[in-house]
Amino acid sequence: MQVQVVQNVLKINDELAALNRQRLRAAGVFTVDLLGGPGCGKTALIEATLKRLVPGLRVGVIVGDLATQRDADRMARFTDQVVQVNTGKGCHLEAHHVMQAMTRIDIDRLDLLFIENVGNLICPVGFDLGQDVKVGMFCTTGGDDKAAKHPYIVCESSLLLLNKMDLLPQVPFDRDLFLSDIYRLKPDARVIELSAVSGAGLDQWIDWLGEQRPRRASAGGNDDATAHPELARK
Amino acid sequence: MQVQVVQNVLKINDELAALNRQRLRAAGVFTVDLLGGPGCGKTALIEATLKRLVPGLRVGVIVGDLATQRDADRMARFTDQVVQVNTGKGCHLEAHHVMQAMTRIDIDRLDLLFIENVGNLICPVGFDLGQDVKVGMFCTTGGDDKAAKHPYIVCESSLLLLNKMDLLPQVPFDRDLFLSDIYRLKPDARVIELSAVSGAGLDQWIDWLGEQRPRRASAGGNDDATAHPELARK
Repeated sequence: MQVQVVQNVLKINDELAALNRQRLRAAGVFTVDLLGGPGCGKTALIEATLKRLVPGLRVGVIVGDLATQRDADRMARFTDQVVQVNTGKGCHLEAHHVMQAMTRIDIDRLDLLFIENVGNLICPVGFDLGQDVKVGMFCTTGGDDKAAKHPYIVCESSLLLLNKMDLLPQVPFDRDLFLSDIYRLKPDARVIELSAVSGAGLDQWIDWLGEQRPRRASAGGNDDATAHPELARK
Repeated sequence: MQVQVVQNVLKINDELAALNRQRLRAAGVFTVDLLGGPGCGKTALIEATLKRLVPGLRVGVIVGDLATQRDADRMARFTDQVVQVNTGKGCHLEAHHVMQAMTRIDIDRLDLLFIENVGNLICPVGFDLGQDVKVGMFCTTGGDDKAAKHPYIVCESSLLLLNKMDLLPQVPFDRDLFLSDIYRLKPDARVIELSAVSGAGLDQWIDWLGEQRPRRASAGGNDDATAHPELARK
């Protein structure tokens, strides 16, 4: 009976995610579900990205946390298309959260949508939200064993980020071990090392978004966005 | 129907946790469920604690991770009473995991048992394992907003740890904000600031264990443990 219920929950989630995806693609919005443990730097990366891309690109953010709207307040300095979802005791965003949040932003006036998931390396991986890509984030201060310990996020993410490279000299982190664990789990993994604080690696991240965006969000939307100098760099 | 199933799962968990607690207390074992996000330093703290307390005190560890037995390998340098639980996709330990793990260590030859939960600030909070105390761990590199964003772990923990104090000068972390969020949520919270790496604050942590242990694990066991010089310091 428990399995049946879990299957039902996932089935409903998949149905709602498909509706989200249909709506987002029709509007030409490229959607990134950003996953990572608490404090790995998801909000800081989105802030740094907004700083680079807005106003040339129209970027929205849906951000999930158990409580507070602190992240939304941080993002709101860069874009007014921000929705904070508070999940209460919920450990991940589900498609219905995103569907509700989408009613509070103007999807038709967006080129790029970040969904910052609840800080959790585990539970969010299994839930489709309607995104184009899932991006999994680790950080140097979190230890070099975290990829090996979390194979599902490694395998399910289109891109893996290793954040807080500026702190690498301060912490015991075996970069070769971390990377070899990733490539053992996923030989064709794409990894970008960066620091949302220092800005190192941000060019690669912006380039990656630019590569992905026209390829995936091809169902509609504005051409001016792909012509954005940052995203058109390559 | 979904709620019913969740209630059943929690009810079964509570029943098994009660059995674990009965068995551990009868053996005079003081049991700590250590909770925190991935990479906050749970394993490093247990290592540092084992280094201080073993062999004067007989300490066991049950450690949960989705995959790998890296943490157990690290602990095994200090004690042979170590069990690694791999939860697969499971985001927290449940009482049945602990019950099974307890069959693989000699409970009657233990004074103190650490259960290192899966790295997750959310899901483990709601599951009783049969522990005496839950201890919630944050870290300076994880950001000063994490207590406010995770009220349940703040409220449900007997002690809160702020780890990685050695890195405080390197990171943007407003200590006053972090602490005021905690005391707003739980006015009588007990907080210890420490660094498992530098050793700062470890005395307070060891003292706290010593204060708690005789008070809670009073149903049996050996007196020599409470006479351990480290735990008898106060």
